[in-house]
Amino acid sequence: MQGKVRGIGIKIGTLPVGQKNCITDVAGVRVGHVTLDEPLNNEGAYACTGVTAILPHGGNLFQHKVKAGSYVLNGFGKTTGLVQMNELGVLESPIMLTNTFGVPAVTQGTLQYMLEMNPDIGLTTGTINIVVGECNDSYLNSIRACPVTSEHAIEAIRKATNKQAEEGAVGAGKGMMCFGYKGGIGASSRIVQVEQVDTSYTVGCMVLSNFGRSNEFLAEHYSVTNPQSASTQSPTDGSIIIVLATDAPLSSRQLTRVIKRCGIGLGRTGSHFSHGSGDIVIGFTTAHDIPHSTEELVETRTQLREEHPMMNQLFVAAAEATEEAIINSLSQAQTTVGRDGHMVEAYSFEF
Amino acid sequence: MQGKVRGIGIKIGTLPVGQKNCITDVAGVRVGHVTLDEPLNNEGAYACTGVTAILPHGGNLFQHKVKAGSYVLNGFGKTTGLVQMNELGVLESPIMLTNTFGVPAVTQGTLQYMLEMNPDIGLTTGTINIVVGECNDSYLNSIRACPVTSEHAIEAIRKATNKQAEEGAVGAGKGMMCFGYKGGIGASSRIVQVEQVDTSYTVGCMVLSNFGRSNEFLAEHYSVTNPQSASTQSPTDGSIIIVLATDAPLSSRQLTRVIKRCGIGLGRTGSHFSHGSGDIVIGFTTAHDIPHSTEELVETRTQLREEHPMMNQLFVAAAEATEEAIINSLSQAQTTVGRDGHMVEAYSFEF
Amino acid sequence: MQGKVRGIGIKIGTLPVGQKNCITDVAGVRVGHVTLDEPLNNEGAYACTGVTAILPHGGNLFQHKVKAGSYVLNGFGKTTGLVQMNELGVLESPIMLTNTFGVPAVTQGTLQYMLEMNPDIGLTTGTINIVVGECNDSYLNSIRACPVTSEHAIEAIRKATNKQAEEGAVGAGKGMMCFGYKGGIGASSRIVQVEQVDTSYTVGCMVLSNFGRSNEFLAEHYSVTNPQSASTQSPTDGSIIIVLATDAPLSSRQLTRVIKRCGIGLGRTGSHFSHGSGDIVIGFTTAHDIPHSTEELVETRTQLREEHPMMNQLFVAAAEATEEAIINSLSQAQTTVGRDGHMVEAYSFEF
Amino acid sequence: MQGKVRGIGIKIGTLPVGQKNCITDVAGVRVGHVTLDEPLNNEGAYACTGVTAILPHGGNLFQHKVKAGSYVLNGFGKTTGLVQMNELGVLESPIMLTNTFGVPAVTQGTLQYMLEMNPDIGLTTGTINIVVGECNDSYLNSIRACPVTSEHAIEAIRKATNKQAEEGAVGAGKGMMCFGYKGGIGASSRIVQVEQVDTSYTVGCMVLSNFGRSNEFLAEHYSVTNPQSASTQSPTDGSIIIVLATDAPLSSRQLTRVIKRCGIGLGRTGSHFSHGSGDIVIGFTTAHDIPHSTEELVETRTQLREEHPMMNQLFVAAAEATEEAIINSLSQAQTTVGRDGHMVEAYSFEF
Repeated sequence: MQGKVRGIGIKIGTLPVGQKNCITDVAGVRVGHVTLDEPLNNEGAYACTGVTAILPHGGNLFQHKVKAGSYVLNGFGKTTGLVQMNELGVLESPIMLTNTFGVPAVTQGTLQYMLEMNPDIGLTTGTINIVVGECNDSYLNSIRACPVTSEHAIEAIRKATNKQAEEGAVGAGKGMMCFGYKGGIGASSRIVQVEQVDTSYTVGCMVLSNFGRSNEFLAEHYSVTNPQSASTQSPTDGSIIIVLATDAPLSSRQLTRVIKRCGIGLGRTGSHFSHGSGDIVIGFTTAHDIPHSTEELVETRTQLREEHPMMNQLFVAAAEATEEAIINSLSQAQTTVGRDGHMVEAYSFEF
Repeated sequence: MQGKVRGIGIKIGTLPVGQKNCITDVAGVRVGHVTLDEPLNNEGAYACTGVTAILPHGGNLFQHKVKAGSYVLNGFGKTTGLVQMNELGVLESPIMLTNTFGVPAVTQGTLQYMLEMNPDIGLTTGTINIVVGECNDSYLNSIRACPVTSEHAIEAIRKATNKQAEEGAVGAGKGMMCFGYKGGIGASSRIVQVEQVDTSYTVGCMVLSNFGRSNEFLAEHYSVTNPQSASTQSPTDGSIIIVLATDAPLSSRQLTRVIKRCGIGLGRTGSHFSHGSGDIVIGFTTAHDIPHSTEELVETRTQLREEHPMMNQLFVAAAEATEEAIINSLSQAQTTVGRDGHMVEAYSFEF
Repeated sequence: MQGKVRGIGIKIGTLPVGQKNCITDVAGVRVGHVTLDEPLNNEGAYACTGVTAILPHGGNLFQHKVKAGSYVLNGFGKTTGLVQMNELGVLESPIMLTNTFGVPAVTQGTLQYMLEMNPDIGLTTGTINIVVGECNDSYLNSIRACPVTSEHAIEAIRKATNKQAEEGAVGAGKGMMCFGYKGGIGASSRIVQVEQVDTSYTVGCMVLSNFGRSNEFLAEHYSVTNPQSASTQSPTDGSIIIVLATDAPLSSRQLTRVIKRCGIGLGRTGSHFSHGSGDIVIGFTTAHDIPHSTEELVETRTQLREEHPMMNQLFVAAAEATEEAIINSLSQAQTTVGRDGHMVEAYSFEF
Repeated sequence: MQGKVRGIGIKIGTLPVGQKNCITDVAGVRVGHVTLDEPLNNEGAYACTGVTAILPHGGNLFQHKVKAGSYVLNGFGKTTGLVQMNELGVLESPIMLTNTFGVPAVTQGTLQYMLEMNPDIGLTTGTINIVVGECNDSYLNSIRACPVTSEHAIEAIRKATNKQAEEGAVGAGKGMMCFGYKGGIGASSRIVQVEQVDTSYTVGCMVLSNFGRSNEFLAEHYSVTNPQSASTQSPTDGSIIIVLATDAPLSSRQLTRVIKRCGIGLGRTGSHFSHGSGDIVIGFTTAHDIPHSTEELVETRTQLREEHPMMNQLFVAAAEATEEAIINSLSQAQTTVGRDGHMVEAYSFEF
């Protein structure tokens, strides 16, 4: 495994990175993976898939919501939970990632987890909105067999920590492929600062990369001497889910502006948001603790002065962090064999 | 049971209705209900809920897609499948309705049903997008117990027929309430015609009504002498899912224009698209058979000349059919007792 | 002239109205009209049109912006300035209303007015976004002659006061028609309150009504004994611009939720958001004074607790105020003769 | 002047270019420029601006509309006409480009031009929607003086031809700057083909570039040995208007999907869609002749089979053509001196 590309001299963008170069650089954010990697029968069926949970904080997310938004770059995807998140501008559950047909089981498991933590939901206090993103790992994973269960979702949430997250062929990324090579989970972060302002903010990104044909990859931008040839083309266009976290105080409108720029980072790797690719960004900020209910009529929220140069820095951070997280997902994913002997090779960043 | 309101002299709007005054007046459209009505234990837990399946036609929906679109009046809801439907403008599965926490199980069951019918999905031909709408029936139903299973979804699809659909406290409507009285499933239809044009089209509507406080109901518009007082207020704002079907040839942009007008019908009953109400419209037209894949580069689609008076007639039909479907859901829902002895009374249209 | 319909016993909705029953009930809001009513030649050409200016406050709107948003019910219209207003969520100029082909002149005049007040714009501080809404008054007005000039726009701004605004065939409403009768400017307001909360907010509405066919008007909802027959049908579908003002503290996302409900009020009068009708809502709140530029990095904004019952009251107020403003535009517009002898009769609310 | 970058060995993307490498490679498309370059007084005021007209075809655009759509990458802009274009999916006037405060005059001139050509508009056949895009050229141009007149707009339309268009500091591009150097008008084109399909389509692009700081420019991607240092920073973030033309048969939904990918090309040059930048894409296809009115109820439209590989090729073409048009705008803009002695240098692509 080659590690993060920054470790091998590939520098993306100009902003400084956080300590872990991971979405968990945003204080409080936690990531947990459950990876499935086992034959399902003797005839080639194989579970090569998993679940990844991203939590804005370690507390009760329903009682302490965070501001959130989403942006659809290309909507050929089955992500669930966006309608309500966009209407209300809040996230009240973990963001879960899995394979396309794992969405119902993961939704069910996450729901169950949140119901146990909140005995009032569905009795006196309405419902809860679960957010699950997905990509199609059917080249390596026996997706029709639906090996992901609701228990896997709960386990991923329980395992989530604030440490530097594992990347590559892990969790929901286990069976994913990117530009014809092994992709999956990638992460990175940026610190945004502005001259003569003491405050700095952190922007963290985690992607589930599963898109692109090998001839689209702009490999020459990543110091590669000889682009490889042993790529495998997926029967479909694939997808990417991009999760962007920050601690900058943003309104939901401002947050949507920021996460829109993730598409810039995606495009810079070579993607054209292909027809069959569900390219979806979900973002949140941990800057506010939004209680589920209060007695108050009015609340006070902080947000960036929109014309402050910090806003543009956040735009740059969103683009850079996304680009680097994608490249990290490539550099850290190991060659993987899945169903019916299908193999997808790791991409080698040669020097 | 009072039957459809038209039978008791309440006329809504001016357009002629179809033979069944139901969404099934659109040729080929099928509806199936599975109703759950049983105690879950001895301590008051009760399954007072169900599943409703709406099929654009009786064939293989994945292989023969229909044009579709959605419109979010108020997004406090957990409907799934809208992202892809809006990007591509097609529907490739039944539209399923159930309670809020039944969405994962119903998605799973519908997925399983479609996978069985289409052995190539997930192997050589990508994935499938399942569309499930929901309302919160937690006043009558033990929603936390998740009594709806994937089998119920499959059963609802299998039972679907083109007959006049049952309405009221049936299928997904079993536990729903509307304006403080018993609501649920309602249906109606309209025939649109224009002078000196031979062609006519049908617009059919089915709602899952679960919204409104009793003091919002514009009862005086429906020939009611004395509005009732024995209403029950839900702890939350409720929701409505509106499904609009037509056989008029529309592009997906045109279809979205038409279904936007369903909100007019909803507003005329007294709704204000309340904060906690997931008010969502899903529409489709059966006018085109869109094959999943072909060898062709270009396809030819018919659509209405946008400035033709027929377009406005479709707008009127969408508003009227929605309004009448809601009132029909009220007039046909019987007094229902659910969990913990909770009871919701039928609304009486007195004369 | 019949005055506001409330004065003749027609009550719309349930919320209390403000003192002037006008958009100017929102503290600080100002309205100014310039009306053109003169022959342009001896062959029937006639200026039967005008300009209306709505100002959120009497100060420098560029230096002290207000939160704002827009919502397109039906986009067959030429309103300008919405792109930037929606991106940034602020209004920095008066909202101007005029006829369709008067938009360039009114934009130019408003721009000139704002440039004079702000000598830095275009030199050191970027540009300014002008918002102009329009309806097509071509049945009565010689619209091709473009009788509205930039000076008329400036005059309307200068004349703006916080008094109860004139309604009917005045300002931009001079040549408009509604449901086949004389329409134009209408206004109303609502006070929103919630039990056990001391605070109340005001919602004010002003419409430029120019839509609807006579057979669409739901006259029976407005205590009319015999709907009239002498209506005139416009060659096109017409339009409506709805301006909603409030002093409630709302984020731009919340504001958009509120103004979406104006469509409910429009629908209740009988409109179906006709194909050729540009039905557009523009809303703002005066609750915040947003400086054009500051040295600050972060700002603090108040907003309603989203789940507070006050939010639903604002939804009700938006629907009711819109409905009543439309009916007021009908009740106060006098029979008007315009180009080529075209006449549109006043609607009579008979008793 | 260095000419198009392809002439000096800089190749962007992989698709073949059209004969003129210009938006006018799309058959029928015409471009006309009017450039203003003169002192306005003796105290430094200077007209350094202009108008550019892009016509989908040489006929009567109101009578023969084309399919069109728009996509807002960042909405800090004053582009007019998008509301109706998006609702109806058609363009019925030339697309005009100018400086920010030139929009009213250019709208007025274009309106006048179209009214003269269509004597029925505003009398018996409704109105017309004019589309004008803008960028802020206030560093070089005395924008407050509004030197652009309605006559300039008419002249630009009249001058439009199907020849290879002039690029750089010309027309609306006269006063624009890009990445701190002289920008303005740029153009390029792509031919999209798919193996074993005889048909090919053309995608043409024209940009009005006025965005970016010099440290954002990804100059190293364009074979530049030593990035320059003599850049000038605009006081504001600038903007870009991207116009994409094609002859591929697309529905308006498909067209919107294609033009969304223009943002990829913009991002690849280094842009982050800065806060103060109005980054707006307008697209059209000449594939259909859409008559203003007919007697028909239904019309037949061709569109691409959505899952055909050609769709992805169009996505690639949109991204590549945009990127190259921007770089061409830089390579062809000459050092320009405007108001108050302000000078912006040409960017030198060194070898």
